[in-house]
Amino acid sequence: MTANDTAVGSAQASSTLVASEPVKTTPIPAPAAPSHPLGPVTAAEITQSAQVLEASWPTGTKLHYKAITLLEPPKAELAPFLAAERAGEKPAPLDRKSFVIYYLKGTENLHEAVINLTKGTVESNVKVGPFLHPNADNEEIVAVEKAALEYPEVQAEIAKLKLPEGAVVVADPWIYGADGLKDGKFYDDVRLMQCYLYMRDPENPSEPDSCHYSFPLPISPVINPQTMELVRVDLLPTGHDETIKPLEPWKPVKANEYIPEAQTLRTDLKPLRVLQPEGASFVVEDFSELGKTIRWQKWDFKVGFNYREGMVLYDVHYDNKPLFYRISLSDMAIPYADPRTPYHRKCAFDLGDCGAGVMANNLQLGCDCLGSIYYISGVLADSTGTPVDMPNVICVHEQDAGISWKHTNYRTGRAVVARNRELVLQTILTVANYEYILAFNFNIAGDLTYEARATGILSTSPVDLSLSQEPHPYGTIVHPGVLASYHQHFFSLRIDPMVGGHGNTIAYDEAHPLPRDPKINPHGTGYTVQKTEIKTTGGFDLDFSKGRIFKILNPSVRNKVNGLPVGYKVMAPPVQPILADKDSYHYKRAEFADRNFYVTKYADYELFSGGKYTNQSRGGTGVRAWANRQESLEEGDAVLWVNFGLQHIPRVEDYPVMPAEMLRVMLRPVNFFDKNPALDLPPSSQEFNCSVGLNKPAPAEGTSVVPMVEAEQKVVEGEQKEKKGCCGSC
Amino acid sequence: MTANDTAVGSAQASSTLVASEPVKTTPIPAPAAPSHPLGPVTAAEITQSAQVLEASWPTGTKLHYKAITLLEPPKAELAPFLAAERAGEKPAPLDRKSFVIYYLKGTENLHEAVINLTKGTVESNVKVGPFLHPNADNEEIVAVEKAALEYPEVQAEIAKLKLPEGAVVVADPWIYGADGLKDGKFYDDVRLMQCYLYMRDPENPSEPDSCHYSFPLPISPVINPQTMELVRVDLLPTGHDETIKPLEPWKPVKANEYIPEAQTLRTDLKPLRVLQPEGASFVVEDFSELGKTIRWQKWDFKVGFNYREGMVLYDVHYDNKPLFYRISLSDMAIPYADPRTPYHRKCAFDLGDCGAGVMANNLQLGCDCLGSIYYISGVLADSTGTPVDMPNVICVHEQDAGISWKHTNYRTGRAVVARNRELVLQTILTVANYEYILAFNFNIAGDLTYEARATGILSTSPVDLSLSQEPHPYGTIVHPGVLASYHQHFFSLRIDPMVGGHGNTIAYDEAHPLPRDPKINPHGTGYTVQKTEIKTTGGFDLDFSKGRIFKILNPSVRNKVNGLPVGYKVMAPPVQPILADKDSYHYKRAEFADRNFYVTKYADYELFSGGKYTNQSRGGTGVRAWANRQESLEEGDAVLWVNFGLQHIPRVEDYPVMPAEMLRVMLRPVNFFDKNPALDLPPSSQEFNCSVGLNKPAPAEGTSVVPMVEAEQKVVEGEQKEKKGCCGSC
Repeated sequence: MTANDTAVGSAQASSTLVASEPVKTTPIPAPAAPSHPLGPVTAAEITQSAQVLEASWPTGTKLHYKAITLLEPPKAELAPFLAAERAGEKPAPLDRKSFVIYYLKGTENLHEAVINLTKGTVESNVKVGPFLHPNADNEEIVAVEKAALEYPEVQAEIAKLKLPEGAVVVADPWIYGADGLKDGKFYDDVRLMQCYLYMRDPENPSEPDSCHYSFPLPISPVINPQTMELVRVDLLPTGHDETIKPLEPWKPVKANEYIPEAQTLRTDLKPLRVLQPEGASFVVEDFSELGKTIRWQKWDFKVGFNYREGMVLYDVHYDNKPLFYRISLSDMAIPYADPRTPYHRKCAFDLGDCGAGVMANNLQLGCDCLGSIYYISGVLADSTGTPVDMPNVICVHEQDAGISWKHTNYRTGRAVVARNRELVLQTILTVANYEYILAFNFNIAGDLTYEARATGILSTSPVDLSLSQEPHPYGTIVHPGVLASYHQHFFSLRIDPMVGGHGNTIAYDEAHPLPRDPKINPHGTGYTVQKTEIKTTGGFDLDFSKGRIFKILNPSVRNKVNGLPVGYKVMAPPVQPILADKDSYHYKRAEFADRNFYVTKYADYELFSGGKYTNQSRGGTGVRAWANRQESLEEGDAVLWVNFGLQHIPRVEDYPVMPAEMLRVMLRPVNFFDKNPALDLPPSSQEFNCSVGLNKPAPAEGTSVVPMVEAEQKVVEGEQKEKKGCCGSC
Repeated sequence: MTANDTAVGSAQASSTLVASEPVKTTPIPAPAAPSHPLGPVTAAEITQSAQVLEASWPTGTKLHYKAITLLEPPKAELAPFLAAERAGEKPAPLDRKSFVIYYLKGTENLHEAVINLTKGTVESNVKVGPFLHPNADNEEIVAVEKAALEYPEVQAEIAKLKLPEGAVVVADPWIYGADGLKDGKFYDDVRLMQCYLYMRDPENPSEPDSCHYSFPLPISPVINPQTMELVRVDLLPTGHDETIKPLEPWKPVKANEYIPEAQTLRTDLKPLRVLQPEGASFVVEDFSELGKTIRWQKWDFKVGFNYREGMVLYDVHYDNKPLFYRISLSDMAIPYADPRTPYHRKCAFDLGDCGAGVMANNLQLGCDCLGSIYYISGVLADSTGTPVDMPNVICVHEQDAGISWKHTNYRTGRAVVARNRELVLQTILTVANYEYILAFNFNIAGDLTYEARATGILSTSPVDLSLSQEPHPYGTIVHPGVLASYHQHFFSLRIDPMVGGHGNTIAYDEAHPLPRDPKINPHGTGYTVQKTEIKTTGGFDLDFSKGRIFKILNPSVRNKVNGLPVGYKVMAPPVQPILADKDSYHYKRAEFADRNFYVTKYADYELFSGGKYTNQSRGGTGVRAWANRQESLEEGDAVLWVNFGLQHIPRVEDYPVMPAEMLRVMLRPVNFFDKNPALDLPPSSQEFNCSVGLNKPAPAEGTSVVPMVEAEQKVVEGEQKEKKGCCGSC
C-alpha cells in the first residue's frame, strides 16, 4: 500500500496494486477550462479519468464504473488555499484529482483509483474488498428489472397467480441489504438485488404510469447484477406472521392511481405567482466550469454537486466572516420494521446505495419551483465512464417566509417590521418509490436551515385481502390488499464548521433549576444555565427535560458585547432512535441512527456517516466507529453530525403519494454578531411589496351582508401599486 | 347564587347579588342586525350591555369595565344548533348573551354579569373575589405609566442617577405577579403594577421611538392602579447576586436602536411580490355583523374575535366532515428565571393579564402581510364600556409553501407534482416589549397548523457596566449594562375536537421493538406499534424515546380502507417543562407549563388554561386542576390542551429586536380519509405558476464564465408567460 492508499482506501480493505503489465503513465493533458480544487469534475475530466485509468490496464480490459467524482484536497492544503483566494492573493494552484470506483466488468473485483487530472496520471489504483459493495447504477437497475420478469422460474410463479389477461408486471429492484446469513456459499459476499414485483392496473395495463404499488405480488426474485443470474425466487408472507402460503389466484382489487387523469381535479384553486420585477437579489458566478459561487444578502458560499451527496456547500461566509467549511447531507437510512424474511433486510441507504446526485430530478420551471429560479446543472459518469448531463439538479430562488422581526411602540403606534427573505437551494431525489425534497435555506438573519421533506410512494407489500380491515402487527393497510410497513427515516447532516475561523469545539447548554435558598432563590423560581464542553469524540443526545441545546463554538473568538465565545446553535428535531436491536444489521450499518449527534475529530475523507460502502455493509466503518475512537477535542477541529428523522407509521392519507412530512435543522448564530444581524433590512413597506387588499368598501347604511370577495379582484399591476408607506400608522 | 352563577362564576369566588335597590328590568330592544350565537359582540351590543347593566345599578354608579364579550352558548345547545344550520334547517335562534367583567370604579369590588342581549335583561350580576384580579386595561396602563414618573419619591430616586441633561425616562408598567408574601396588609389581595423604568437615548431624547430598553434603570415604582397610590419604590439588584447597591450616577453607554433611521440599510434586496391575478381562492361570508365564515379548498369554518383569546375558530369542517368544534390559543405564560426580588414575580400571562384581542396590532397592507389580503376587524370595549374599533386585527391570505407531493416514475420520467397551498389567518400581539405573531394555517392536504413566532424586544434589566463582559448567572448581557434574563415561553392551545363527529377520545401510539425470537423476530429488526387510550383526564408528555404520538380519535367512526378509528394526530414540539419548583407561584399559576398535554372532559366555559383570572393569581383554577379531577373519558368528549414553548436563553442577536423564533403544532389526519386528500389538486404547471428562469443562454464557445444574472431579468408579465406544460418531461 502506498501513502495515498491510506488516505482514500477503506479501513477494512486489503489493497493490492493491480495489473501485471507496467502502468502506462503518459500524461494526458488537462482541459483548458478555469480550474478550482472544489470544482465538480467536468465532462472532459470524466472522460480523461476513464481514458487515463483504462490506459493503465491491458488493452481491451472492460471496466464497469460506479463513480468518477472529485477528490477534494486535504483540509491542510485546501483551507489555506481558500483563505488566500478570499484575501485576493493568487495561491499556488492545487492539482485536480478524481476518485474512481469501478469493477472489472462482470466480476466482483472492486477497485478504487485516484487520477491526477492536472498531470494526467494514475496516482493510485487498488483493489478493495472483500465484503465491500458500491452503489447500484442506473444501467444495471434497468437490466435487472427487465431480466427479473424473463426468467422461466419467475414466470412460472407468476402464472400461479392467474393474473388477468394482459396484466403487466413491474419489478422494483431493491438493494439486497444484509443479515450476515450464509445460506449458500456467497450470499453475503456477492452483491445481489431483491426485486419486489407489482402489477399495473389490470383494467388499464397500457398506462405506463399506473401506480403499480397498489397491486403488490407475493413473489420476489433475487438476482446477481454482475452475472445476471437468478439466485432464487422468494415468496412473501401475506398474513400476520411469517407463514408463507402457497400462491393463489389473484383476487380483484380496484386501482389507486396518482396520475391526474384518474382524479376529479379541483377547479377552484386560483393561481398564486411570485414576481421579482427587478430580478433576484442573488448573484451567481462560476468558480469553475460547473462550480458556482453564490452571493446573497451578505452570505457567500460555493456550491458543488457530486454523484453521492448531491449538493454540497463549501466555504460559507456571512459578511465575510467564516462560518462553515463544508456542509452536506452525509447519508440516509430507512430501516424497515417488518421482521419477516425477506423484509428484515430492507434498509435503504439512499446515498451510499444509490447516490443523491445520481437520483436527482431534472427540476422543471413552474412545477418544482415557484418564482424567479436559477438552475444549477451537473455532470455525472455512467457505468461506461461516459459523461452524462444532469440538467437542473439544483434550483436556486428567493422566497418570502413571513415576518422576521417586528416591534410596535404602543405609546406612539409606530411599527417597524422587516420581512424574512430566504434563499433556497433545493434538489429532489427519486429513489424508486420515495421522493426526498432536500434544501439549504439561508435567511437574512444569519440562519442556515437544512430541510428534508419525504414524499413519493410508500414501499408496499402484499397482504391477504381478507385481512384488510384488521389491524396488522407490522404496518398499516393503506389500500385493500396493500400493507405499508412501519419504518424509520434517518438523515445525517455533516457539518464541518469554521465559525469565526477554524478550530471549533462543540458544547451543550442546559437549564437547571436552582435549589431553594432563602438568600439566593427564596421563591423557587430561579434557574441558570450550565455549559458542558464536549472534550472527547462520541455520540450525544438531545434532552428536552434539561432544555439541552448544542452549540458550535470558537473558544478563541469572543463576542464584542458580552465576551462569550462566538458560536452557532444547532436546533435539531428529536427522533426516536433506531429500534432494531444492537446485534442487528440495521443497527450495525445505520451508524448514525442511534444518537442525535455524533462529534468526531476532523479527518480527511471521513465524509459518509454510514461508511464509504453501505451496500450490503456490515457496519463498523462509519461515524459511530470514528466517534468511538474517543479522540481528544481539546484542540478543536470538531466535525458535527446531526442525525434526525422520523418514525413513519403510515396512514391511509400517505397513499398513493404522501403529502410531504418536513424536518428541519436550523443553525442560528449565538453571540456571534453584536446585535440582530437583520436590523439593517429596509422596513417592509407596501411600496416595496405591493400587496393587494381584498376587502370591499364598507356596505351602504342599512345593509349588513358583505358580498363574497371573488369577482372584483382582477389585478392590473400598475393600477394596484400603492405608494403609501404604511408602517408608521400601525 | 343562582344556577347561572355556577355556570360562569369562578370556582373559588363567593358571589352575592348586588345592589340594594331593585334591579330595573325594562328590556332594551336588541339591534336589528343578523344574529348568530357565535357572532362577536357588536358595537351596539357593547353599548347595550353597558346600558342594561348600568340601569341595574343606582343612578350615577360608575363602572370600570374590564371586558364586555360574547358569552357563547353551552355546547348542549350550540352543537345541535350548528348541525341543524349546516343541514340547511332553520334552528330556533339561541339568545345572544354578553359576559361583563367590571369593577365599581375606584374600588376592588370585582363583578361578573351576564346580559341577555336578545331580551335586554341582566341574567346575573355577582360580585366575585377576593383574590381575583382581571386583566389590566389600556387606560390604566397609560395612566400608571404617566403617574409613575410624577411621584416626588420616584423623582428623588431618579435624581440620584444624575442622568444627562434632557434625559427622558420611560415607564413600562408590568403586571405585579404573585409570591404569596404578606408584606404589609394587602400586597396579595390588591391589584398592583410594577413599573420598570428605562431611559431614551440621552443623545436623542426627543425620539419617541428610541429603544429605551437599552438603558434600563435600577428603580422600580410599585403602584396601585385603582387608587393611583404609590405603594413603594423598589431598587433593583445590578450585580450577580441579590445585593442592592446604593444608586450611583449613570455611566454613559451608547444607544442600540431598531428604528431604520439609526441603521445603514441594505440596498441590495430586490422586491418579491405575490400576485393572484384571478383573485384569491377563498370566500368570506358574514355569519353575523362581525363574524366571518371562510371557505377554502374544502375547508370551512367560522372565525370569531374576542378581547382575551383574539381569534377563535369554530365549527371547522373539511369537505363537510366535522373536525374541530372550537380551537383557540387558551393562554400564554412567560416565567422569568432571575430569582432576585422583584424579578421572582415576573411571570406574564399575556392573555389573562392583558388580552390577545386587546393587544392585537392593526395589520398594515404590504408591511405585515404579503400578497392578496383580506382583513377581519373587531370591536372591543374600553374601560368606560364604549365600543372601540379594532381594525385589521386578523389578516387572511393564501401562500405557497413548496411542494405538497411529488412522484416521478423513473421508468417513464413522468413527474406528477402538486404544490402545497396554504391559507393563513394571522394576528400579531404587542405586549409592551414583546411581539407574538400567531397564525392558523390550513393546507390542501387536510392539515391544520398553529404557528407562534416570538419577536419584539427582550425584557431587559440593569446590570453594572463593569460586569458586561462577565458571564451572568441569570441571563445574557446583550448590550453594555443590559441584562436579558433567562425565561421560558409557554403557549397553550385548546382543541375541542369533533373529528368525525362529537365524542372524541385521545390516545397515543408508541413504537416498541420486538424482542428477539427465532420465529417472529430472528434478526432483531422488528418493531410494532402499541396504542394507549387515555381513559382518565390528566397530564401527559411526549416521549421521543418511544416515538410517542398523540391522536384525537373517534372510536365510533371507522376508516373505510382499514377499519381503524378515524383521527387526527397532534405533532407538537417538545419543550423543557417549567423550571420553577412545585411550591413556587410560577408553577402553581402556569398550570399548563409542566406537561406537554392536558386532557380534560369537556365542561362549558373551561376555556383558559391558567384559569379565568391570571392576574396575581394563586393557581388551582386552571387546566391542571380540571385535569386532576380524574374524570372518566370512556364516553369521550375529551378536550385536548397542547402546551408548547421555548426555553429562551437570550443571545446578542435577539437584541434590540429579536429575529422570530417559530413554533408549530400540526394537526394531521390519520386514517380519516381514504387516500391522500390532496390527490385531486391540479398538477403544478408552468402555465399556472408562471415562474421565471434566470439562467442565461449557454455562453459562446471558448468562454466559460457565465456573467452575473442581475441586469437582464426585468419581467414584464405578458412577455414571460410560458404556456408549456412541463411536468411530463422531468
